Amino acid sequence: MRSNAKDRALRERAAQVIPGGMYGHQSTILMPEGFPQFFTQAEGTRISDADGNTYIDFMCAFGPNLLGYQHPEIMTAIQRQQTQIDTSTGPSPLIVDLAEAMVDMISHADWAMFCKNGSDATTMALMISRAHRDKRKVLVATNAYHGSLPWSTPRPGGVLAEDRAHLIYFDYNDPQALTDAVKQAGNDLAGIFATPFRHDTFTDQTLPDAEYAHTARRLADEHDALLVVDDVRAGFRMARDCSWETIGVRPDLSAWGKVLGNGQPISALLGNNRAREAASRIFVTGSYWFSAVPMAAALETVRIIRETDYLDHIQKIGALFRNGLVEQAKGFGFDLRHTGPETLPMVLFDDDPDFRLGYAFCAAALKRGVYLSPYHNMFINAAMTEADIAETLEATGAAFEEIKQNRDSIQPSQLLMAMAEQKRPTTMRQ
Amino acid sequence: MRSNAKDRALRERAAQVIPGGMYGHQSTILMPEGFPQFFTQAEGTRISDADGNTYIDFMCAFGPNLLGYQHPEIMTAIQRQQTQIDTSTGPSPLIVDLAEAMVDMISHADWAMFCKNGSDATTMALMISRAHRDKRKVLVATNAYHGSLPWSTPRPGGVLAEDRAHLIYFDYNDPQALTDAVKQAGNDLAGIFATPFRHDTFTDQTLPDAEYAHTARRLADEHDALLVVDDVRAGFRMARDCSWETIGVRPDLSAWGKVLGNGQPISALLGNNRAREAASRIFVTGSYWFSAVPMAAALETVRIIRETDYLDHIQKIGALFRNGLVEQAKGFGFDLRHTGPETLPMVLFDDDPDFRLGYAFCAAALKRGVYLSPYHNMFINAAMTEADIAETLEATGAAFEEIKQNRDSIQPSQLLMAMAEQKRPTTMRQ
Repeated sequence: MRSNAKDRALRERAAQVIPGGMYGHQSTILMPEGFPQFFTQAEGTRISDADGNTYIDFMCAFGPNLLGYQHPEIMTAIQRQQTQIDTSTGPSPLIVDLAEAMVDMISHADWAMFCKNGSDATTMALMISRAHRDKRKVLVATNAYHGSLPWSTPRPGGVLAEDRAHLIYFDYNDPQALTDAVKQAGNDLAGIFATPFRHDTFTDQTLPDAEYAHTARRLADEHDALLVVDDVRAGFRMARDCSWETIGVRPDLSAWGKVLGNGQPISALLGNNRAREAASRIFVTGSYWFSAVPMAAALETVRIIRETDYLDHIQKIGALFRNGLVEQAKGFGFDLRHTGPETLPMVLFDDDPDFRLGYAFCAAALKRGVYLSPYHNMFINAAMTEADIAETLEATGAAFEEIKQNRDSIQPSQLLMAMAEQKRPTTMRQ
Repeated sequence: MRSNAKDRALRERAAQVIPGGMYGHQSTILMPEGFPQFFTQAEGTRISDADGNTYIDFMCAFGPNLLGYQHPEIMTAIQRQQTQIDTSTGPSPLIVDLAEAMVDMISHADWAMFCKNGSDATTMALMISRAHRDKRKVLVATNAYHGSLPWSTPRPGGVLAEDRAHLIYFDYNDPQALTDAVKQAGNDLAGIFATPFRHDTFTDQTLPDAEYAHTARRLADEHDALLVVDDVRAGFRMARDCSWETIGVRPDLSAWGKVLGNGQPISALLGNNRAREAASRIFVTGSYWFSAVPMAAALETVRIIRETDYLDHIQKIGALFRNGLVEQAKGFGFDLRHTGPETLPMVLFDDDPDFRLGYAFCAAALKRGVYLSPYHNMFINAAMTEADIAETLEATGAAFEEIKQNRDSIQPSQLLMAMAEQKRPTTMRQ
């Protein structure tokens, strides 16, 4: 019998000294009951919780785990660098090596700036877009996640109307909506933000329509505004380049994070020469932005990305997971929607408007050693093997069986019900 | 003869792939000519540049180096944690241990939230202040540095008027100015920000006036607003507690960073129970905010802070440096102003309105193996010994001698002159 006594004891302590018991995207508040909050070990593709239960981890730290936790070559690079210099009074030469490596690898990029959070990179893109021609309006797709600063966080607490005064929202993948938003910006268009594909939570993922992406590029050019691709979540899981290279559109700026150091804290903004002058006029910095160890990890990660077949591998593994899961669901009488790139799967059930089936399914898989998300896209990592997918499908097969048996008694999440009653958080933005 | 050929070659490469050649607070653009941009080794209290020149480092990574670079016990904690879990799908139990340790140590704190940048912590304080009673106005001292996001960055590039629409500026240490600013906020006061002392660049540092600090506390209470101490720069160099404990004033929120993991990337916002409910209502997060290795480093740093005499030691070392330097200057006919706490020294020359003496002095000390700043407060670390200070004073003695000899031919920095011509950056805020 799976125990969670230690996790519960930790939650009780956490409730005393952390507001709400936990915060941010790694709070389990939105997860099905029984999901562990605390983990003590991560290796390869597996994580172990505080009670010693081990899972095949399809969240991959919400992205950063691209090549496997504690990847040996990256750990060697980290430990070697730690004996030299990390956070100090200036950057190490690695910042130049890494900027060159990124410029070499990412087609649209002529320069790089490194930072810590994905939000740092997207906020730099916002500032550079505005500095570029001293314009104010920035277009972002409704519900797209670009970070959790006042201009971008999906919840209203602590946010003022002024924080978003010059943002204009439009529907993803709709060239007409984009064109209308550009008209609304008038002579004041600074930039257009795009996620590489639509990866909002609780929704099917949608790949970008080529006409939409090309329209974004054309409108930005016509108005001397900057086009920004936010590749923080999807980076290096669609291409060894900016994700929009897959549809032939080059942005002026791209934001990167998560996978860049395979879990080491580093993010980046890349840009072309058109955006360089504005980039040199903003003042942005952070205490640890110049630290050398995450850059050593990123250089090694980028080398592995360049030199190995990791991408083909995660695409193959992702397809195995997708096809296996969808077929398995059919066998048990469920219709599953598996959307987005196979390396960033979102799995939702048909006829499940309150997500109760998805939640029950993930809870049942968790009990059998597979960590899935019922509302957020998941991530495939390159340490996953065909044997891992076979083991996963054995667990999910049993999970489908369980929810088929219990189907009539499954209750929806009380929290989700309460949230559905409230206004959608994004209404505050408009 | 000291070489800088490798540094120059790196700068040329950097100019190609990094906007402006470097960015942020670790760019040497404001430093005297000849200061190295790139470093390859940091150990104890010394850093070595790309050309192999070694310096006693009085910048301490702009703060993070509190106990010595590569502190053995902290490195052991880091390396042990790296074999377990770092960035993963959830936090490790260390987040609870660390929150408890901070709450135990910091008198005003009932809870903690961890993040990466100092800016993350100050921005969370801004958001929580506004969420607390749904008010908007936040008071900050003119020229005080609270980070480099659009609401706080000291330069205008990419910043809109709306980013600061509800900030009200007042003069540090002036109770009347503070009272007037509160009046200006009317019924809409959300919070009052304070740095523990005035540590603006290019200016004498000023310790907080007790009346001013108590006025801030009283006004916040009267208006049910939150008082925030931004301890990111000064934390743990004035007290084993929030820095304003030294004058008997407890804030509702305090922002921490830099020293917290002795260089590992971690910052924190601490708060009291009054602020807890608002803190649980904002949505803030980051890809690496829950990573375990920086928390292991922070736990070990906090243990050393609690159990050793590091504070007495850095105060003693700082006083040796201050007294030695001031006396030495007198001997060479210079009047030096050494302001602020001895552990965070700012050193400026009298009769040096364009800073040419300070710049020439720091350049002369650098040639002799001592890295000082002519415009930013410096930092003392606990690895510094009396022998280090003796070695420092030998170098600074020779530096005073050199600038005394050359006094009439010393030219001011061209860049500083150009900047002085421009508007002060803070005028944009008002």
